[in-house]
Order: sequence, then structure tokens, then C-alpha cells
Amino acid sequence: MNSEQLLFKIPGVRFDEDGQAILTVWAPEAEQVQIQLENKELKLPLQKESYGYWQLETERIRPGDLYRFIIDGKDPLPDPATLSQPEGVHGPSEAIDIQAYKWHDNDWENPFLKDYITYELHTGTFTPEGTFAAMEEKLDHLVELGITAIEIMPVSQFAGGRNWGYDGVFPYCVQDSYGGAKGLQQLVDACHRKGLAVILDVVYNHIGPEGNVLSQYGPYFTDKYNTPWGNAINFDDAWCDGVRQYFIENALMWFRDFHIDALRMDAVHAIKDFSPVHLLEEIRARLDEYMEESGKTHYLIVEMDLNDTRFINPVSKGGYGMDAQWIDEFHHALRVSSGQERNGYYSDFEPITSLAKSYKDAYVFDGIFSEHRKRKFGVKAEGNPGSQFVVFSQNHDHVGNRMLGERTSQLVSYDMQKLLAGAVIVSPYQPFFFMGEEWSESNPFQYFVSHTDQELAEAVRKGRKSEFAAFHLEGEAPDPVSEETFNNSKLQWELLEKESHQTMFRYYKKLIELRKEMPALNSPDRNAMEVEANPEEETITIH
Amino acid sequence: MNSEQLLFKIPGVRFDEDGQAILTVWAPEAEQVQIQLENKELKLPLQKESYGYWQLETERIRPGDLYRFIIDGKDPLPDPATLSQPEGVHGPSEAIDIQAYKWHDNDWENPFLKDYITYELHTGTFTPEGTFAAMEEKLDHLVELGITAIEIMPVSQFAGGRNWGYDGVFPYCVQDSYGGAKGLQQLVDACHRKGLAVILDVVYNHIGPEGNVLSQYGPYFTDKYNTPWGNAINFDDAWCDGVRQYFIENALMWFRDFHIDALRMDAVHAIKDFSPVHLLEEIRARLDEYMEESGKTHYLIVEMDLNDTRFINPVSKGGYGMDAQWIDEFHHALRVSSGQERNGYYSDFEPITSLAKSYKDAYVFDGIFSEHRKRKFGVKAEGNPGSQFVVFSQNHDHVGNRMLGERTSQLVSYDMQKLLAGAVIVSPYQPFFFMGEEWSESNPFQYFVSHTDQELAEAVRKGRKSEFAAFHLEGEAPDPVSEETFNNSKLQWELLEKESHQTMFRYYKKLIELRKEMPALNSPDRNAMEVEANPEEETITIH
Repeated sequence: MNSEQLLFKIPGVRFDEDGQAILTVWAPEAEQVQIQLENKELKLPLQKESYGYWQLETERIRPGDLYRFIIDGKDPLPDPATLSQPEGVHGPSEAIDIQAYKWHDNDWENPFLKDYITYELHTGTFTPEGTFAAMEEKLDHLVELGITAIEIMPVSQFAGGRNWGYDGVFPYCVQDSYGGAKGLQQLVDACHRKGLAVILDVVYNHIGPEGNVLSQYGPYFTDKYNTPWGNAINFDDAWCDGVRQYFIENALMWFRDFHIDALRMDAVHAIKDFSPVHLLEEIRARLDEYMEESGKTHYLIVEMDLNDTRFINPVSKGGYGMDAQWIDEFHHALRVSSGQERNGYYSDFEPITSLAKSYKDAYVFDGIFSEHRKRKFGVKAEGNPGSQFVVFSQNHDHVGNRMLGERTSQLVSYDMQKLLAGAVIVSPYQPFFFMGEEWSESNPFQYFVSHTDQELAEAVRKGRKSEFAAFHLEGEAPDPVSEETFNNSKLQWELLEKESHQTMFRYYKKLIELRKEMPALNSPDRNAMEVEANPEEETITIH
Repeated sequence: MNSEQLLFKIPGVRFDEDGQAILTVWAPEAEQVQIQLENKELKLPLQKESYGYWQLETERIRPGDLYRFIIDGKDPLPDPATLSQPEGVHGPSEAIDIQAYKWHDNDWENPFLKDYITYELHTGTFTPEGTFAAMEEKLDHLVELGITAIEIMPVSQFAGGRNWGYDGVFPYCVQDSYGGAKGLQQLVDACHRKGLAVILDVVYNHIGPEGNVLSQYGPYFTDKYNTPWGNAINFDDAWCDGVRQYFIENALMWFRDFHIDALRMDAVHAIKDFSPVHLLEEIRARLDEYMEESGKTHYLIVEMDLNDTRFINPVSKGGYGMDAQWIDEFHHALRVSSGQERNGYYSDFEPITSLAKSYKDAYVFDGIFSEHRKRKFGVKAEGNPGSQFVVFSQNHDHVGNRMLGERTSQLVSYDMQKLLAGAVIVSPYQPFFFMGEEWSESNPFQYFVSHTDQELAEAVRKGRKSEFAAFHLEGEAPDPVSEETFNNSKLQWELLEKESHQTMFRYYKKLIELRKEMPALNSPDRNAMEVEANPEEETITIH
């Protein structure tokens, strides 16, 4: 039973050196799988292989061909591992040769994780055009700012053209309206040539609501667990290997075919997996093999809301071996210390003292009782170096999840904005900024979608309204489906011309310079650091 | 926030040295909690404490008093941590002084786990009387047999008087019809005086269907996970600390107040817990503290169907620190090797070769694909000593889950029965026998319940019938609710008088003697052992 190797199949359409197409579909319960070419009026059967896979090697499929799969004679469907959806999520898939791109970044070396200074951006709103090509034009600005890595919010194909990215339904496919796979490859190549690492945000905990065809191929979901998005992805139930493989190969694809330097995996606490080898640990193992092979370094960073060091501990200690994680608790403590009202998830945090604890211990809740969660929460993160933690004073979530999507620029004073940036830069953790904060962007970053399914769009609209009804705030929640909401969330680059915005930019630039130049800041030792909280004076002393 | 200590409350009614009653109820969402004494026509309010606890210290409650709790003025309910239910699950609770028992086992020392030779028994069917007192009369038989530990199937209070024990609804309460708490204490005391260790089977993965009052006290269940028994017990959702504490204190109670030597925790794979410290790891930590304090040794053994060494690895390696686990796969491989048809869960196993693998590697599925489970299953158990694995040729489950509940005595030849016993004894694992197999008991061990809720009884009856409908077997499934089914499952001690049964008994006795005397058997080294499978000759060579 050599299941190891047989399971290592890359789903989707690939081309070998001779231009032959290799098609792989995982459909373990199907009786028959066919490919239907749209432009050639051709239908070909795939052969059943072991472990639920179907395959076909053929010269009759060429890059540029549009295709769909037919399962047991039912309606044709896009490929679950499609690399291109030129007509959107409901259209046919396009066969492309993902390895045809000629790279110019041979000399690129991924910096050490401790040297990552990250800038999060959303492709659609970072520039007026909302494309990778337009983003490339702005890289010099980022280089001047001094950041060392950009983190791109999810780019997997979603319905319509406006979405944060967490509603993607084709994990292997780069959003067509952003510029598709080739657009992303060109952008990463350009980043590397300019000395910037690229982190890609990927979503392995759910699949978006519109255009999701996965269940029609196989048991991608399980009713063993309930998540905020309905049934959980099947990582540990019958037939889970094909599903695991689908996501593991996806992670590897970004490194191999897109030269992505690090993945930021969304909300991994929602990956429900009681297997003896957790999905993340398996991704770690497969990535280690790939790094050994390629000689390149890549990182795995997780968003994780459990304060559980098992995720970031090495495999030898029973951990999953992730390189780093976000700590939202630093953000919450920082924001409460700068005047944020203590409601919702902020209610658990005390001004100054919680922040001092996060500077020292990373996790604020490290085994103590959380009133908000109504349970003891977390463990101590004692053996973990500071470079394993990513901190920020704002990010897409904490800005965009406010009813009006206000950035700190609209909430706190100009001086407080500077203080927030300073608080992040002097931390012993990885500093992380949200696009536009370096010039005190005044536009909001609001929640927007462009579902073409009208019922779903209406449901999101209503959900958004009721979410904020409880807060009794004045004003209305912006309509998430309206194009105006999307446009309102775009950066205003022209602000950079104005004095106060320029000053903020120079301030950020100086801070980042300091972080790089001062040994105490660029190679901080968490254990040697002393933190004193003085709540009465509203100060924290770090030395 | 000293939540650590505040959470360490023992639920239920306890008496201190001065005879004062200390009442503790966990009801985090209640507005008012009262105790109602049945015989004194007295109602007293409990005081609200932190973390959802309610308490009262009073001299007005005495051992022997019958009581119920009233939550927010609703119908009076038995105590979730009741120690005695003299009128069954629907009756009032009885206050008893669990620490009043005078022990005579001061000199008792729990043997090393590697020296455990275990005998599983079901209190209700082990003797004609079905009580602890009657069981005590039979201890000399067990001593003569040579086993070193008995394992008692669950004794927590269930509805009616006939049940395997997995439908218990009051984890702290010993079944009244068996002899209650004092009966169990006397039995353990007697076992220790006769040199027998006592393992108790406990169920922390679900609560039985009839008489379950827990939800009326607080969020004991969560809809985050679906289990075969409905909603999972809440081990990691809001308010889980009180629930975790309820089960952790239960584990400690058996060691402290009943001198139980080891717990066998039922189906721990169904304990759904994504907390950074798994419930089992927390039980381990609390038990370690207790052992340090008491100077006594106790073990934690789990039934676990995941082939996941995380459960039995030490905490220092990221494990949960369980001392040992059952391996059903050894059983399945052994039974298939002895002629069992390869259907259901047996379908994954090959005669001889699977058994040889289990002798060598414990887990048959150690990362390879399982056709039955339709996934890659398990990890390698390389660093784990043989004493961490419990093996058997039959147990209550694999006998009782057959439609007719046949023991091997009804399924294989007399010589094959001997071979099966020998196969268990020569394994490098902990041998484990099921009551009656030592004399080739001919009665079945069938599935029986005595739910007093007629609808439920009917549902179980139907469920049992349909479970076996698929097998197209001749004959009818015995009625689980009928008293006859229960009586048919009792051991026939009179068989011991008959020659062939006596011979089997002497054979078992001899085998156990050999296990104790031969160094290769009593201190086996898994790594030094060589196993050769010869499927053609239907033999395995171990040396």
C-alpha cells in the first residue's frame, strides 16, 4: 500500500516539458469524469486512478483552451483547481501553463523573519486601478518607506470584482480582475528585484459562498464540525486525504510557481482537524521537503485566535512548526490604551497594563480567565522568540469590521497616530502596517462584496446592518454591495502631496530606519527586555 | 485574576471534619439556586461565587438527607454531582459523607503498569446477584487465575438496573443497584487486600439519554461539534471551565475517595477539545499533583481510536501524558487471523500479516490508507514501550456488538480459543481478558438496557434491529430492553465444575503463570523483538 506517493498528485491542469497536458481531478465518489473543451467542441474521458483521483494525459489540450469537467453526466463545472477563470467564477476554466513565466529573481534571498517589516495591502483598493500592474508602479513608494515585505490580501478568484478576498472559491486561481496568475507572477518578480519579500494571505478554513463547486466533486466538507461559515472543510473525516492534498499542494504552488516568500494562513483556529498529523504540520513537512529541494527559504505565518503555542512550536516539541503568528491581543491592548472604548472583544483588555503584558509575554490571556470568552484562555508563550509574533496597531480586520470602517486617522489625534506607530516599531515582535497608515490616509476601509447572486447580496447587506444594530450608533452601515463603498475604501495617493500627510510619511520612514539601525530594535531579546507599566501616568517603560 | 484556584471547586455535597456540609453547584447562567431537603421540608439559598459557582456551608444538612436543587424557581432537580441516587436517576439525591469509609488497604501498592494482567467485568452480569458484594465473593477465583487487575465496566448511575454502563447520567454517583458508593469502596478495599488492582471504566465523552439534567444547570454541551450521541460535551466553548472541572474532579474523586488504581477512559477520541491544554493533559497534570501529595501511584488508560501517539506521549514531547491505551487493531487482526469474516471494521485487516504488524508496531494503520475509513490513518508508535498498549482477543464491545453477542467460545474451536489466549499472553503488550473467557463461558454478552422512558426504550429496540438488518443474518436481534437478554448474559459459574471448562481455566492459569515467570514475557522489549509472518503456513514466529 504505497499510499504516500500515490496521494501526492497536483490537482488541475499542468503541462509537462513536451507541452503535454496532465489533467488531475479528485472525485472519489464519481462513476465517470470527462473534460469538455469549450472552443474545440471536444469531450474526453479521464481515467480512474487510486484514491479517488481521475487523470488524463493528452496533447489535445493547449494553453488558452477553455474547459469544464462533467461528473457522471451532470452539468459541466469549472475545475476545482482552476488556475484561470477569465469569465469569472461561473465561467469556464482556462488551461494555462503556470510554469511558462520567465523569472528574473534568481538572486533573490528571502530575509530572516526577524527582519520582516510588513505592509498589508488589498489589491483592489491599494491603487485607483486595483490591479497588480498598478501596484507595481507604487513599489518605489514602499521601498522608500523602508518596509521589507508586502502582504497581499487573498487573491483567489471570488464572485464579481469587489471583495476583501475571504470569499474566494477557487484557491488555485488568481482573481482575473487583478491581473490573473501572470499578473501576480510579474508583481512578485518586480518586488524581488526591488528587495521586497511577498507574503500572500490564503484561506484554508472555508470556501466562499458564491461559485463554490467543490461539493459537486467530492466530500470536501464534513458535518462533524460547525463553523461560522457552516459545515467545516473535511480535514479529518472519510476521504479527507484528497481534500488535504488539495490545500497542501495549493500552499506549495504559491512558493514554487509564484515565488511567494511566506504564506499568511487565515484563521487557522477554524481548520478543524483531529488527525494525528494536523494539516498545518503536514504543510510544514511538505514545505521543508520543497525547501530542501529548491534551496530557497519560505515561511508559514498563521492568524490564530487560540493563544496556543502548539501551532508555533517546532514539530520536535509536538508543535505544528509554524514560523510565526499574528497576535491580535497586542492590537486590542494597544487600542484600548489609546482610548478605544472597551466593548466587544476590547472588553477584556485594560489600558496600559494589558499592553505591558503583551510587550512582555506576547499573549495577554495566557491561562487566565477571559470575561469576554467566558473561559480560561491560552497558555504561556515562554520559549518562543519575538520574531514569531506579528503586531500592528490596525489591519484590514480591525479597521474594516467597524461599522464605518474608520482607520485610526479618523479616531485618534495626529500625535496618537505617531505614538501607535512607535509602539509597534519598538516591540520585540514583527512590525506590521496597514496600507495608507504611513500617510494617515483619511478614507475608510469598509466591508465590500460584489456577489452576483442577488439573494446572497441581499443577505450580506442585511447581515451587515443587523451586526451593528446592537451598537445603537448614529448613521447607517454603508451598503457592502454598492460600488461606492468599494471606491470610498481606496487609498488617496494625492494626499501624499499635502504637508501633514507627508510629515507622517517621513515619520514612519524614520521609525523604520531606527528599527533597522538600532541593535536593541532589530535584534530584540524578549527575555532580556524589562517592561514596566505605570497605569496612573499612562506610560510604559521598556528597556 | 486568580482564576486558577477559584476554579478548583469540587462540585456536589461534601462534609468537612466538623460535619459541616459544603454544597457546590455550577450554574453560571442562573439567577438563583436553592437546595430543597425532602425529609426536612427545608429550602436554603446558595450564594453566588465567581466563575458560575454557587455555594453554601451549613450544618443543617446531614448524611442521609435527600435533596434536590432548584434553579431560578423551576422544577427541583437531582444534583449533577450527586454521590447517591437511592431512588434511581429520577429520584432525589442523597447527601453522603464519601470520606467516612474506613480503609484497610494502607499497605497496598499499585503494581507497575507492565505487570498489569487485566480482567474486565460487568458488575450486573459477573454474578447471579449482580452486585459489588457478590463480586467480592468471587475474588479468590480471580486471584487463583493469576490476574493482577480487574477492570470494572462503568458504574455511574443509569436509568433502571440493567445497562452496560455507557448510559450513565451522574458521573459522580455509583449505581444504587450495584451497591452504591460504599459498596464500591468495600470492593476496592477487598481487592487491594487480596493483591488485585482496580481499574474503573469512566465515560467523559457523552452523557446517557435518560435522566440527564446537566443542560438544566449550565452549558455542559456545545453545538460546535456533532458526535454519534448528538451535541458534544462542552470542553472548549464559552463556560467550558466549569464543565472541564466537573470531569477533572470526577477523575480525581475515584483515586482519592475510592482508591481506584487506574481509570480506563472511554472513547477519548470523542472528547472534542481544541483547547491549548487538552482535557486529558489537564487531568494528567492534576493527577500528577495529587500523586505527589498522596505518595500513591495511579494510571490513566484510554480507549482511543485514532492511532495517535500524541495521547500517550509525555507532556514534554507535546503529548497528553496518558499511561496506556487500548489497541483494538490487535484484536481485529487476531480475530481475522482466526477465521473472523472480513466485514465492517474487520475488512481492513489481513490474516497473519496484519497481526504480525500489530505485534511489531502496535498500530496496524500507522500512516497507511485504510479502505474502511477511506483515509490515511494513524502515525508510527515507535518510541512507545509495549506496556503502553492493552490487547485482548475479546472484550465487552467486540462480543456485545455482535447481533447475538457471541463470545469466541461460540465462534471458534476449543483449540482456537486456547490459541487466542496464548496470542494475547505472548504479546509485548498488557494482556487483557473478558470475564468468563477463562472457562470458555458459553453464554453470550448481549446489549441490554432498562430505560424507563418507554419512547427511548422503543427507539433503542428499533435502532438495534436496524443496525443488524444490513447483515441479513438469520434469527432476530435479542430485545435489548427485555430482562431475559440481561439474564442470558450472566456468567454461569456452575460451568467451572465441568471438565472441559475446568481444563480451559487451568490452561489460562498456566499461561498467566508463564507470563509472570518468563523474563521474555514479563519484561518484553518491543525493539528487540523479531516477528515473522508466514501467511501461507498461517503462522507467526516471534523471538
